[in-house]
Amino acid sequence: MSASDDPTVADLSEDAILARIFPHLPQGPGTVVPPGDDAAVVRAQDGRVVVSTDVLVEGQHFRREWSSGADVGWRAAAQNLADIAAMGARPTALVVALVAPADLPASWVEGLARGLAGACGPHGAGVVGGDLSGGPVVVVSVTVLGDLEGRVPVLRSGARPGDVVAHAGVRGRSAAGLALLGAGLPDLDPTLVAAYLRPDPPIAAGAAAAASGATAMLDVSDGLLRDAGRIAAASGSRIDLDPVDVAFGEDLARVSAAARAVGADPRAWVLTGGEDHGLLATFPARTPLPAPFRVVGRVLAASEDEPAVTVGGGAPEVSGVGWDHFAR
Amino acid sequence: MSASDDPTVADLSEDAILARIFPHLPQGPGTVVPPGDDAAVVRAQDGRVVVSTDVLVEGQHFRREWSSGADVGWRAAAQNLADIAAMGARPTALVVALVAPADLPASWVEGLARGLAGACGPHGAGVVGGDLSGGPVVVVSVTVLGDLEGRVPVLRSGARPGDVVAHAGVRGRSAAGLALLGAGLPDLDPTLVAAYLRPDPPIAAGAAAAASGATAMLDVSDGLLRDAGRIAAASGSRIDLDPVDVAFGEDLARVSAAARAVGADPRAWVLTGGEDHGLLATFPARTPLPAPFRVVGRVLAASEDEPAVTVGGGAPEVSGVGWDHFAR
Repeated sequence: MSASDDPTVADLSEDAILARIFPHLPQGPGTVVPPGDDAAVVRAQDGRVVVSTDVLVEGQHFRREWSSGADVGWRAAAQNLADIAAMGARPTALVVALVAPADLPASWVEGLARGLAGACGPHGAGVVGGDLSGGPVVVVSVTVLGDLEGRVPVLRSGARPGDVVAHAGVRGRSAAGLALLGAGLPDLDPTLVAAYLRPDPPIAAGAAAAASGATAMLDVSDGLLRDAGRIAAASGSRIDLDPVDVAFGEDLARVSAAARAVGADPRAWVLTGGEDHGLLATFPARTPLPAPFRVVGRVLAASEDEPAVTVGGGAPEVSGVGWDHFAR
Repeated sequence: MSASDDPTVADLSEDAILARIFPHLPQGPGTVVPPGDDAAVVRAQDGRVVVSTDVLVEGQHFRREWSSGADVGWRAAAQNLADIAAMGARPTALVVALVAPADLPASWVEGLARGLAGACGPHGAGVVGGDLSGGPVVVVSVTVLGDLEGRVPVLRSGARPGDVVAHAGVRGRSAAGLALLGAGLPDLDPTLVAAYLRPDPPIAAGAAAAASGATAMLDVSDGLLRDAGRIAAASGSRIDLDPVDVAFGEDLARVSAAARAVGADPRAWVLTGGEDHGLLATFPARTPLPAPFRVVGRVLAASEDEPAVTVGGGAPEVSGVGWDHFAR
């Protein structure tokens, strides 16, 4: 195929690559100065801005044979948007740094832009800036900004004994989809594969939870047990989750066939699978929960005799509690 | 050496690595919610936030045999701070994504944190968040936020015929330092090598320029000719720079011995060398310029018969106009 049919990034100048990306990117209603200058300017109406950053690295977080550029763009945006939602804020803008090997097709980069746009656009977040460099593997580094709209930020440290624990979003499906890809069985359940490739966190539920009085919240990126443990540790309390069949029966049912096919424990996927990016929050008892939050457990007083996180009153029945990118 | 003496990032958990980094990082007076939650919250007092992102990639922007972790952290911060300054804003906060090979010493990462802190601290910018991943080479992706403090953002597009062109900072010294490292002659002039390893842009001059009525401004990251051309193009005008000996006599003198040693043209370094991160701005004629800005040229009406950027009224005497990361 000639360079003009599907050029690589090395066939094009930096300006030519940017010219292919820009038309795909949403501006966002909060953008005051759009991309093209040394920096962009974004509205921060209540005098504060929420900021978080997350990086995706080829070979660590995705493989190009499984994830298209659009998949990677979608996922990079979605996991960043979830971090803003987890503070009780509304996402307003993203900036994106892309490291690209010389042989990366320009069409992959265009796909990345389309994926970013697809994940951001519906939430009103613009892509307002970026940087581009060469490098040995694809790296997509996204920083996201958000607006608390006057609300108090919801931290991990506010859970109190007596609060209910609630979850919004799916559990274990990203881990199931990844396992199907790894086993060469993506056709067994393409919706699970899609849950891995393009997670769709309940972004608007974050602001709704804050408005409803959530006392603590985070985005479940490293697995339910590990992330529940983070709320417990930050809050000086402990958390008892309802039995998996009760709290996550629908997720369990959805991943069971895939688990049988690859010889995995579906409960482990639900309890420890990462990257679903659901929201885990605590609320004072009897608070009407905003959709799609459902009660999945309770906050209890810390105790030296009990683990920080229990399931159905006992120690979790699975080993391993989540991801560590450098763990051996 | 045992792992406990100088462990690599693979010897430590992600939490242990973060525990080594955090104590070094400045919080910044504008930080409302510090690192440790899903996102940080930073003050944006005038209801807007300035945002820019820049990435440094090992093998593209630095070599570990030349740059320490502290050097890379300093440079990553400095070039991002310069983008905020170039809008006429004051930097308030940074977030940093680090991709680290498994064999990277943890001490290198601690150095990176110290370098970031050294470059940010004096300007009141905190390091408020980050992400960490494995990968084949070191990638440092920084996003910086800034506060316009009520000022109008200074864009590239506001230069008008009759304006003076002014520059703050050094020229050609980063290119000279890089050339000395490349020639194995760093001891010939360690101050030039330092100018490459740890650029020190005039950050506060950006806000001062905006307050003084600058009509256009940018951070000279890709070389004077190329970046002056960007102001000319965005403004629909052209720029005539004063002869190098007049406008940049001190820089020319400072790099001449190095140029002789490596057989380079010192004028080319001054006109096209990248990564000094000085500020190039235009001001209405007779505006008292804030220090350390000095007049280095004039804005003229665009003309089809003249190049967008001339030097002393004629075509620049050097070939090449700056960097392109994918150029072959």
